Amino acid sequence: MSVLTTEQPDAVPAGEEPPDTGERHRLTAVTGLAALSLDAMASVAYGPEAIVLVLAGAGAHGLGFTMPVTLAIAALLAVLVASYRQVIAAFPDGGGSYAVGKTHLGARTSLVAAASLVLDYVLNVAVAVTAGVAALTSAFPSLYGDRLWLCLAVLALITGVNLRGIVESAKAFIVPTVVFVGSIFVLIVVGLFRSHPVSTATAAGHASVVADNATSVGALLLLKAFASGCAALTGVEAIANAVPSFRVPRVRRAQRAEIALGTVLGLMLTGLSVLIGRFHLQPVEGVTVLAQLADASLGHNWAFYVVQFATMILLALSANTSFGGLPVLLKLLARDNYAPHVFALKADRQVHRHGVLALAVVSAALLVFSGGDTNTLVPMFAIGVFVGFTIAQVGMVRHWWLERRAGGSPGWRGKALLNGFGALLTGVAAVVVTASKFSEGAWLIVIALPLLVVAFETVHRAYGRIGERLGLGRIPQAPHRDRSLVIVPVSTLSRLTSEALTSAASLGDEVRAVTVCYPDPEDRAQLHALERAWADWDPGVELVRLSCARRTLGKPIAAYVRDVAAAEPGTQVTVLIAEAEPERLWQRLLQNQRGAVVAHAVRRETDAVICRLRFRLH
Amino acid sequence: MSVLTTEQPDAVPAGEEPPDTGERHRLTAVTGLAALSLDAMASVAYGPEAIVLVLAGAGAHGLGFTMPVTLAIAALLAVLVASYRQVIAAFPDGGGSYAVGKTHLGARTSLVAAASLVLDYVLNVAVAVTAGVAALTSAFPSLYGDRLWLCLAVLALITGVNLRGIVESAKAFIVPTVVFVGSIFVLIVVGLFRSHPVSTATAAGHASVVADNATSVGALLLLKAFASGCAALTGVEAIANAVPSFRVPRVRRAQRAEIALGTVLGLMLTGLSVLIGRFHLQPVEGVTVLAQLADASLGHNWAFYVVQFATMILLALSANTSFGGLPVLLKLLARDNYAPHVFALKADRQVHRHGVLALAVVSAALLVFSGGDTNTLVPMFAIGVFVGFTIAQVGMVRHWWLERRAGGSPGWRGKALLNGFGALLTGVAAVVVTASKFSEGAWLIVIALPLLVVAFETVHRAYGRIGERLGLGRIPQAPHRDRSLVIVPVSTLSRLTSEALTSAASLGDEVRAVTVCYPDPEDRAQLHALERAWADWDPGVELVRLSCARRTLGKPIAAYVRDVAAAEPGTQVTVLIAEAEPERLWQRLLQNQRGAVVAHAVRRETDAVICRLRFRLH
Repeated sequence: MSVLTTEQPDAVPAGEEPPDTGERHRLTAVTGLAALSLDAMASVAYGPEAIVLVLAGAGAHGLGFTMPVTLAIAALLAVLVASYRQVIAAFPDGGGSYAVGKTHLGARTSLVAAASLVLDYVLNVAVAVTAGVAALTSAFPSLYGDRLWLCLAVLALITGVNLRGIVESAKAFIVPTVVFVGSIFVLIVVGLFRSHPVSTATAAGHASVVADNATSVGALLLLKAFASGCAALTGVEAIANAVPSFRVPRVRRAQRAEIALGTVLGLMLTGLSVLIGRFHLQPVEGVTVLAQLADASLGHNWAFYVVQFATMILLALSANTSFGGLPVLLKLLARDNYAPHVFALKADRQVHRHGVLALAVVSAALLVFSGGDTNTLVPMFAIGVFVGFTIAQVGMVRHWWLERRAGGSPGWRGKALLNGFGALLTGVAAVVVTASKFSEGAWLIVIALPLLVVAFETVHRAYGRIGERLGLGRIPQAPHRDRSLVIVPVSTLSRLTSEALTSAASLGDEVRAVTVCYPDPEDRAQLHALERAWADWDPGVELVRLSCARRTLGKPIAAYVRDVAAAEPGTQVTVLIAEAEPERLWQRLLQNQRGAVVAHAVRRETDAVICRLRFRLH
Repeated sequence: MSVLTTEQPDAVPAGEEPPDTGERHRLTAVTGLAALSLDAMASVAYGPEAIVLVLAGAGAHGLGFTMPVTLAIAALLAVLVASYRQVIAAFPDGGGSYAVGKTHLGARTSLVAAASLVLDYVLNVAVAVTAGVAALTSAFPSLYGDRLWLCLAVLALITGVNLRGIVESAKAFIVPTVVFVGSIFVLIVVGLFRSHPVSTATAAGHASVVADNATSVGALLLLKAFASGCAALTGVEAIANAVPSFRVPRVRRAQRAEIALGTVLGLMLTGLSVLIGRFHLQPVEGVTVLAQLADASLGHNWAFYVVQFATMILLALSANTSFGGLPVLLKLLARDNYAPHVFALKADRQVHRHGVLALAVVSAALLVFSGGDTNTLVPMFAIGVFVGFTIAQVGMVRHWWLERRAGGSPGWRGKALLNGFGALLTGVAAVVVTASKFSEGAWLIVIALPLLVVAFETVHRAYGRIGERLGLGRIPQAPHRDRSLVIVPVSTLSRLTSEALTSAASLGDEVRAVTVCYPDPEDRAQLHALERAWADWDPGVELVRLSCARRTLGKPIAAYVRDVAAAEPGTQVTVLIAEAEPERLWQRLLQNQRGAVVAHAVRRETDAVICRLRFRLH
């Protein structure tokens, strides 16, 4: 999962970051690896499974190709890690594909990268939740039928935690990551000492999905298996994005963490694929490949359940990172005028809530769309990831090319070749996954990605026009002073009326009270009572009677305000609305909402300034 | 169903009534009967069924008592109609049980009447919808399994229509009412000419609910059957409530309509009960008694479907009347300070929507609670109706007693006896239904009714305290003029800033601009740019810099406002928030919401007046 940020996204909640982050709070290579590798490590829970599922289409013969395909993916991993080492050096301020694209490939390409990142954040939630629930239902098969509901429940839990704004320190993620990686390595090492599965409990009792007749294994099938399995590579860019979170020397430490990440991930993938071949594992409905491997290697005992729980928890945390990462991306887009500015307003917790809820709703839709099945979502996820990888790599090629012209680093040709090779591999993978999974969900990405780019560009143009109208960047006219007329809507006579007229007199050169009256006898009686009381009170302010045949409150006042403003140009017309604020919260239900109705009508139909005075009753 | 109103509730939407309703638009006895009898007529669809269902508990022998029980109900109907003739004469302005109770029995009794009316409005929706769907599923038995969903769909439809605010003229209700009553009479007359059912299509193929062994028929069973069947009497008070809607001489016309209503309803009930006896009808699950009678009398042909459709449409319209009636009741309660004043604010369509949605949600809960079964809801409905009847009758007894002391009408003793007898019968019925159906849902009413009364009284007390604080009814202090200080939050320099300072200068004796700055280097750079531009512009207004370590926007401004207000007592402090209003609606998404954040914080934490200036970009 890409975390595109110049900050450390999981460590500190947006809007709550401490004023100065001391160096000693920053990451070393080891803590950085643990804190930032979560998404990458979690992807081994669904990556190998994606390979096996494609190859099983060609029967047991096909499954024999698991190892070569995994080795090809491990090779791509090596290329990517080497590429990202270079990205770290070239973009020490954090080089997400959006940043690299923006610097080297122009606005539109960077927007494609941004759109793919947005889709990734959303899909990461859905994939991690379904994969986490799959780990759970593999351990407790009776829950399998309710997996969609379980997914939605987990999503609701994560959403709830994020709405409450509880954000843990990145260090809190270290323990689950270490437990998960440790248990996977134990699983692999123990498995390597066995020649036969010690238990096939999870594989029994389920219908096998593998076709019995061995069909030929074509290049296309292998390509598809490769492309699907590349889902295991998601998250390798996270360290490159978070260079500023490392302790000095930042670049060196980040590079070391990146290499460590690649090594650990590569070992896990290769080790698991060796075991898949050794135990002649076949995909089984309702049980993950990882669960079968744990079963075969460790036995159907407490160790099996430890692996499943560690997997589930890591995946849930992985889903959680999207809730921290997407707001950071949206903030960057908002600063560049590609997303609503409200996302750049860190101060507003309410906005954060809207973002969390929007992400939850879209993820829930994806969960329902996929029926809670990871393998429907993984290819869609992979497309976005590869698009981002490709753009970052191509941008790096251009980076080295420009470096050379600037008379830069000597080995530019080798570096450009490495990045170019990476771009080629990930580009091909993106095309293969899109083509082979088009009808199974990839169409959604093919539609959504350009739509997002168009949306970014539309927002950008709109901000351009708004900035033009507002005269941004130019010195505006000098302010001046107008005559001020304050209009105060009145319905009864009370201390509130007195407060309102006092405020109005302070704000205006002239004050007028207005009251709306209807032809109904009861209403007329009320009006006469008000007029009599007004005469008795004699506040020195005219009470204007606005007759209205229909029972509307806002419209006659708005019409009067409009008429006054038209009749007296150069006068600043203000409508002052006074409201009593009761003592207790529930008593707000007792307010008559006249103020809200008048404010709404005046705002919609006139250019008058609206003043609201709250008179506290406590 | 009680319609408590001095207006004609179905004719004109609240807030849209024409200024003067001409006499020729008012109702004659005939059109009044048609327009106001809908609820009463519709209740024959579930009233007889309620009797049969209780009596079937004692087997075929028990069912033999259908006729005597119906005659007892018809007798009660006669008493009620005679009573309400007197109510019409005594309360020509419309005498609902709330009005009668308020005049003669004190505040708390009238609140009990009001609470029972609120519950009736809600239950009427649920009963009418389930009964209407039962008519439909009787015609199309394959829909029976989905009856709850059908109920919710019908409710959604009615809610949608009411949210749109489409309110038909009362006259539009005449045709369905006439079709329904006409088809019931045809059914009865044709049935009287038959000695055997012409068809038993609906009764076949379903398990009979009747116990085969004839048990003894006790007085309690008959009382229960009587009390349940009294559900057929709901709605007889509607004409008495709507006297002002009649043409002069109003009282005479309304009285005639009331007697006609009683006669038609009595004839229908008696006729249907004769047929029930003649055809030895037994309750069948999933088929209404009315459907069985239509089948037996008219045959399983087009005529049968006409009866079912007419029933369904009439019941749907009957449910719809609650949506018109409840707001009128709430308005009366709001005028007496027993319900939030917002309900008395006819002008606000938004409020109307809230009311419609609230009624829909509570009705939906009742539908789910009952599983879409009419016979679960009917007893609950009957309790509220009888409580209202009883209060109105007791109030009338007191009315005649006071009349006598005032030397009034000569026949007061007979009139009081009649009302007293009515009160006794309906009171007993209320107690019997509550006791016999307590565990089957009546407990809900026993809990909800006092809770509603307590809520009304709590609201009343709160308004009393608020009125005291506001000094309502007393001449307030004379208004005076304070020095005015206007604070303008600023973040960038644009035409909007210039407009804001112009407004502020017009409103205030002194203007100060404030900007919030954070220690972040990027933010500091922005601040310096703003300060430089401000110096260049030189608007003659001081720019105050509010430093804040944490990234919050509203709090530092609110704190500054509070400090200024504390330091300069006697100064009116106003915060002026200027916002650009974009050209298109979707572009509002692009606004940064700074204004909303600041307004929220200032409103919550200070007593300052908040001014909002919208600068239109179009």
